[in-house]
Amino acid sequence: MGVDSLPRTIELLRDGRGTIARIVDQKALPKDLVFLDIATYERMIGAIKDLTLRGAPAIGVAGAAALSLYADNQTAADSPKALLEELEAIAPVVASARPTAVNLGWGVNEALAAARRAAEGGRALAAVKEVLFETVKRLEAEDEAANREIGRQGATLFARKCRILTHCNAGSLATVFYGTALGIVYEAYSQGLVDQVYIDETRPVGQGARLTTWELSRAGVPATLICDNMAASLMGQGLVDAVCVGADRICRNGDAANKIGTYGLAVLARCHGIPFYVAAPSSSCDFTLETGKDIVIEQRDATEVADFVPPGIAVYNPAFDVTPASLITKIITERGIFLPDELGAAYLIN
Amino acid sequence: MGVDSLPRTIELLRDGRGTIARIVDQKALPKDLVFLDIATYERMIGAIKDLTLRGAPAIGVAGAAALSLYADNQTAADSPKALLEELEAIAPVVASARPTAVNLGWGVNEALAAARRAAEGGRALAAVKEVLFETVKRLEAEDEAANREIGRQGATLFARKCRILTHCNAGSLATVFYGTALGIVYEAYSQGLVDQVYIDETRPVGQGARLTTWELSRAGVPATLICDNMAASLMGQGLVDAVCVGADRICRNGDAANKIGTYGLAVLARCHGIPFYVAAPSSSCDFTLETGKDIVIEQRDATEVADFVPPGIAVYNPAFDVTPASLITKIITERGIFLPDELGAAYLIN
Repeated sequence: MGVDSLPRTIELLRDGRGTIARIVDQKALPKDLVFLDIATYERMIGAIKDLTLRGAPAIGVAGAAALSLYADNQTAADSPKALLEELEAIAPVVASARPTAVNLGWGVNEALAAARRAAEGGRALAAVKEVLFETVKRLEAEDEAANREIGRQGATLFARKCRILTHCNAGSLATVFYGTALGIVYEAYSQGLVDQVYIDETRPVGQGARLTTWELSRAGVPATLICDNMAASLMGQGLVDAVCVGADRICRNGDAANKIGTYGLAVLARCHGIPFYVAAPSSSCDFTLETGKDIVIEQRDATEVADFVPPGIAVYNPAFDVTPASLITKIITERGIFLPDELGAAYLIN
Repeated sequence: MGVDSLPRTIELLRDGRGTIARIVDQKALPKDLVFLDIATYERMIGAIKDLTLRGAPAIGVAGAAALSLYADNQTAADSPKALLEELEAIAPVVASARPTAVNLGWGVNEALAAARRAAEGGRALAAVKEVLFETVKRLEAEDEAANREIGRQGATLFARKCRILTHCNAGSLATVFYGTALGIVYEAYSQGLVDQVYIDETRPVGQGARLTTWELSRAGVPATLICDNMAASLMGQGLVDAVCVGADRICRNGDAANKIGTYGLAVLARCHGIPFYVAAPSSSCDFTLETGKDIVIEQRDATEVADFVPPGIAVYNPAFDVTPASLITKIITERGIFLPDELGAAYLIN
């Protein structure tokens, strides 16, 4: 019980036989906590694609880990240059496993850039592999540190005991450890500022129903599961003091992509006078995109929505939507609390 | 294929052995079309409670049918007076099977009032039973006629080919035949005015995913299933021209209770400048209630939302919410198209 009893979502490990990424199998939750050991980059891509591992910050680290797994377990390259060429070939394959979260490409690039610097700096093959491994370990540590700082920053937004609505899972399970939106919840709860968390079940995959319920149960935070379509009713009854969600990609103007349903919550929050907070590490920021119009929205399979659909009926299943900056009250990163339209400028100046 | 291929949702029938209500088993859809023969009022109450039969207009007729089943198959009363006393005892039990839709109590009262008039008018026992049966047959016919008129009236709201979003099932399956909100869709489609129907899956019970998909598939109307949390994204992309839903209870001021999620859609429609239409027969109107604040909202079991919930996590599962009149563009009944705040006055004057 307590936040510290939560598992690490992804952890790169070495033993005598080689390197593995130990991940929580998120498809087995909430019934069973199962760890899977991933030894190849192809299996890591598979785990990302089929949502065994999900959450923008977590798949960022997974992207970097995929390259380290390749270098430690799979390559036959006999020189740093040959290894680098191979890494450059697989990097785009890993980075495109899912399109919407910018963190995935970011993590792959962090690992690739570190390997390139080492190789071009004249390091030996074993040293390049070591640099890759250490880069992943650094990203793991930085992710946890960023989340804890997001939690500290975000908790200052609550002046009294609050009822917080969240969507999807922007918790420890979406990150290496601790979580973004739920990181704020954990810190605020420790300060006595959380009365209740309302959890949207988050159809069609049920990240709220399966993952956020499990995580808040284990962390001991009082919470209530609702269907997505019940959020408006709670707001109308005055039962929601704040909405707090994560983000998969934040643009220069503050527009933010997040799990499908987030945009609707932001509209509802605005209409009910409820603050709408987006919490994400800097690795979720993509300032190459001016606005959310340029974000690629992943379309997923109809079978996620229904096993059986009568003949002639189509299914629409976008995994994300874009919330315009104008509907976001504050964006919280490990670097502080920002008005959405301040964020790009604040980052690009510093 | 086509609307005429849809089944009658409830039909009271007599054969040599007695009276039965033949109903569509809505729990077997969309995979199987199964009819159930109900012979007792207790079984009818069970079918209403467990959603084998649902939809405000349909359960209105079912409430009346329950009394006819009792009179034809169950009573040992040897006089009209004795039968009436028994009917008066079971009527409140039937009427309280579900609390929110006013139609259930209305249907029970229609049947009871007809039996009372017959008994007090000196009719014989067999004649009182006949009056009950004929009352149900009249309600069945009036329901279909009202729906067809709602369809004709409502279709006049569309000046061009539209994309219509609907929630839950306010279709033929929610009525004796033809449907209310979907009655409008059927009539508008026959006039070439429907490009596409977007169907909210309608968690937790899935009336949209299971029933509206099946019904529109069979009727041959082009339609797309979405999760409830995707409606806002469609609206934001300009893909929804109108929202059309049913109602379980409409108050004097135009506030309307309907399936949970309706209120949120109404807020979203208003924010996106999309008209929001409520279609219901007069039997859904309850002018004894001034506003929606007085409507009892049915709370249903947590197991509808999730099979498994981790320890310490609560579940909130209201079956309905109330949409204030101010968010409703028009209310369509078989008596015409009304501004919500005109409805009560229009009905009470005439």
